[in-house]
Amino acid sequence: MAGYSKKYRYLFLGEQFDPSTHVIVTFYVESTGELERSVEAVAAESSIGTWTDTEGLSEDLFNRLSAKVFDLKKLDEKTAIIKIAYPLALFETDNIPQIFADVAGNVFGMREVKNLRVRDIELPESFVTANKGPAFGANGVRETLKIYDRPLLGTIIKPKVGLPTKEHARIAYEAWVGGVDIVKDDENLTDQDFNPFYERITRTLEARRKAEEETGEKKLYCPNISSRLSEMYPRAKFVAEMGGRAIMIDIVTVGFSGVQFIRDQQLGLIIHGHRAMHGAFTHSDRHGISMLFVAKMARLAGIDQLHTGTVVGKMEGTKEEVTKINNFLLGDWFGLKPTLPIASGGLHPGLLPELIGMLGKDVIINLGGGIHGHPGGVTQGAKAARQALDAVMKGVDLTEYSKDHKELAEAIEVWGAGSAKMEGEDKGGATYKHALVLSKGLDLA
Amino acid sequence: MAGYSKKYRYLFLGEQFDPSTHVIVTFYVESTGELERSVEAVAAESSIGTWTDTEGLSEDLFNRLSAKVFDLKKLDEKTAIIKIAYPLALFETDNIPQIFADVAGNVFGMREVKNLRVRDIELPESFVTANKGPAFGANGVRETLKIYDRPLLGTIIKPKVGLPTKEHARIAYEAWVGGVDIVKDDENLTDQDFNPFYERITRTLEARRKAEEETGEKKLYCPNISSRLSEMYPRAKFVAEMGGRAIMIDIVTVGFSGVQFIRDQQLGLIIHGHRAMHGAFTHSDRHGISMLFVAKMARLAGIDQLHTGTVVGKMEGTKEEVTKINNFLLGDWFGLKPTLPIASGGLHPGLLPELIGMLGKDVIINLGGGIHGHPGGVTQGAKAARQALDAVMKGVDLTEYSKDHKELAEAIEVWGAGSAKMEGEDKGGATYKHALVLSKGLDLA
Repeated sequence: MAGYSKKYRYLFLGEQFDPSTHVIVTFYVESTGELERSVEAVAAESSIGTWTDTEGLSEDLFNRLSAKVFDLKKLDEKTAIIKIAYPLALFETDNIPQIFADVAGNVFGMREVKNLRVRDIELPESFVTANKGPAFGANGVRETLKIYDRPLLGTIIKPKVGLPTKEHARIAYEAWVGGVDIVKDDENLTDQDFNPFYERITRTLEARRKAEEETGEKKLYCPNISSRLSEMYPRAKFVAEMGGRAIMIDIVTVGFSGVQFIRDQQLGLIIHGHRAMHGAFTHSDRHGISMLFVAKMARLAGIDQLHTGTVVGKMEGTKEEVTKINNFLLGDWFGLKPTLPIASGGLHPGLLPELIGMLGKDVIINLGGGIHGHPGGVTQGAKAARQALDAVMKGVDLTEYSKDHKELAEAIEVWGAGSAKMEGEDKGGATYKHALVLSKGLDLA
Repeated sequence: MAGYSKKYRYLFLGEQFDPSTHVIVTFYVESTGELERSVEAVAAESSIGTWTDTEGLSEDLFNRLSAKVFDLKKLDEKTAIIKIAYPLALFETDNIPQIFADVAGNVFGMREVKNLRVRDIELPESFVTANKGPAFGANGVRETLKIYDRPLLGTIIKPKVGLPTKEHARIAYEAWVGGVDIVKDDENLTDQDFNPFYERITRTLEARRKAEEETGEKKLYCPNISSRLSEMYPRAKFVAEMGGRAIMIDIVTVGFSGVQFIRDQQLGLIIHGHRAMHGAFTHSDRHGISMLFVAKMARLAGIDQLHTGTVVGKMEGTKEEVTKINNFLLGDWFGLKPTLPIASGGLHPGLLPELIGMLGKDVIINLGGGIHGHPGGVTQGAKAARQALDAVMKGVDLTEYSKDHKELAEAIEVWGAGSAKMEGEDKGGATYKHALVLSKGLDLA
């Protein structure tokens, strides 16, 4: 390797790097000047380099530790998709903040790049297995709920904030007895005066036990513990002490240092990962960090179930992107347990056929407004959602099924339904004949 | 307030909201459809609403807790600058992850917005004072170093990663004896095999004591403790036990939950805040979160010194933006101690006149490559930087000053210098007659 003395020191186009000793990162790069120099700047800044030669940077050190650009696909004069190989030695393999700082840190602010996006990261086996990953994983969540053959049905308590604690617990109870498996807090409900955390846990877990007795089903409550860690850890412990089975963390706003800490404590709690704020850096396809990258870090950190998008709901995310992320989370990754994807945001019963058709059955389907906005109330809304789920699993058209399921019929009356039918058995990728009526469902007023 | 039943329920244009009981957030919004509806979606999603009516959302609850858009300046048919008032009750005031989840959470991923940027946040006194803020602050840092009348001179050990521990400590020592006040680790150096954390602390603090004895000056070492918190906290405690006076945290990649935890421990350590990864969401002026917002959260969380930009270096950031952030950090904020801004990235001695002219003397000036890349080595590089600093403080032209300061002359030989002279005494905003030669300084090869 003669990179040290050549003109483009960090370019090793066409060379091979051992994937068992290198981290491979794919970037989209837009240059502000000469493309090759911008590409070099990315490799340098994210490994050992800076903008000038320095005393300590020997040829040996360069060869051992510099990042190396080994693939460059020009899209035009100034833009390219590149792959960079980072020697494993650059990383502290169980330190997720450090992984971000390495490959997704200073590089975004350099004058050499107009836009830059971290698209994907591939980690060697030794790197992945240095992390514990999910304690429960997708199968552990199913074991806890004793549900093996269908998507799990979740809900968020709506209105998202503002309900007094008793109301919160009551609505959770009503959702559970209606047929919901999982109740989660909203991402910005933590410990406000109108609904204090500790009282909420006590009352909502009481409601859960009551609903379990009445239905004979296991239920899950995912309270949002997100806070400064000095508060978050006591909150998590309290949930465990009170017989809770799960907690929710806003993984982006809390940060991975705190997420990893909670996972390290082995509290015996399923960790539900909310991704609020991700859109600040995943939104553009030309800049920032992809949700796939975040999902990989979340699985590494031990998130058991993670929001990844709905394709059809109120949040953005293409089918291709969401499917790719979900397939990664559920697939083999050097023995780490899989993470169960969550589809949440703007969903209602009428969207379930298309949703399950696209995402398959290994998913948590979260309906917030699509349950609580039901004209018959929360329990009826939960029934409608569960009926829609049952219909899809039986392969029955929703409108047909609603003929003798009045809660579903009422939901369809309010939000509409595609008269969609599954085409064949490929639930992971099936498409539907008829477009869904989205406009009414997205009406805010 | 009749918002609940009107067409645009969240619009209260022209109304006044009490700034002592509301959080005011300024957004830039680009609509994908009708501007007013997109604006409503932002207010709803970031407070109590969702995409449909729900059972629990009463008029009383709406009036008490909904976010309200009270200012809307249209830039064109689809874009606007808006101000939203959030009732204080929505927030847990000492929970920074929750603040992000509230006003900078789900809103970025909604289909209603093409782009959305959180530009600024104004917090009531009761909100701000619920937080401890910096333990040392700008004055505490100056007290520690006994330097009151000039910018502080910092350096990063370069190459940023890869040096063995002994070399790292030696280079730190050489920088300190050359006249540097503060040595910091790089943002992606944590605990790698080539330079293990605990050994690095021991050796580098030894080097600091030696340098202090020889120079009679106080010095600061800011080791990067960023990691999973289960590692980060022991690392911070070790630094304190070994006589360290400061730590560095990558505040974005670690996350504010961990940052607040470390501040809560009262370890008696100055916290140096690095902002690696911020560019993933601050880069675009049309989307994401502004650095000003991040800086406010950092001061709230207790960061004593924070990277905010150089204007003239390798990292982006306009003069207006950096000045605004620095003025906020140094200004009065309901009694919270000020945070000292850090200018870092691509700086060399020749840039100091312009830099200090723009940013004033209340700043840490960090030179990495601009010290370690000096042809005479690290100590000579540090001398050159300190000479440049002295020249600026004496109001002497750099080229003039370099005539009897050979280290500075050598630095100018390599990287160039503006023959700039300060115009008048207004160091906070003075401009210079001559442009600096930036191109050579930014040469990567």
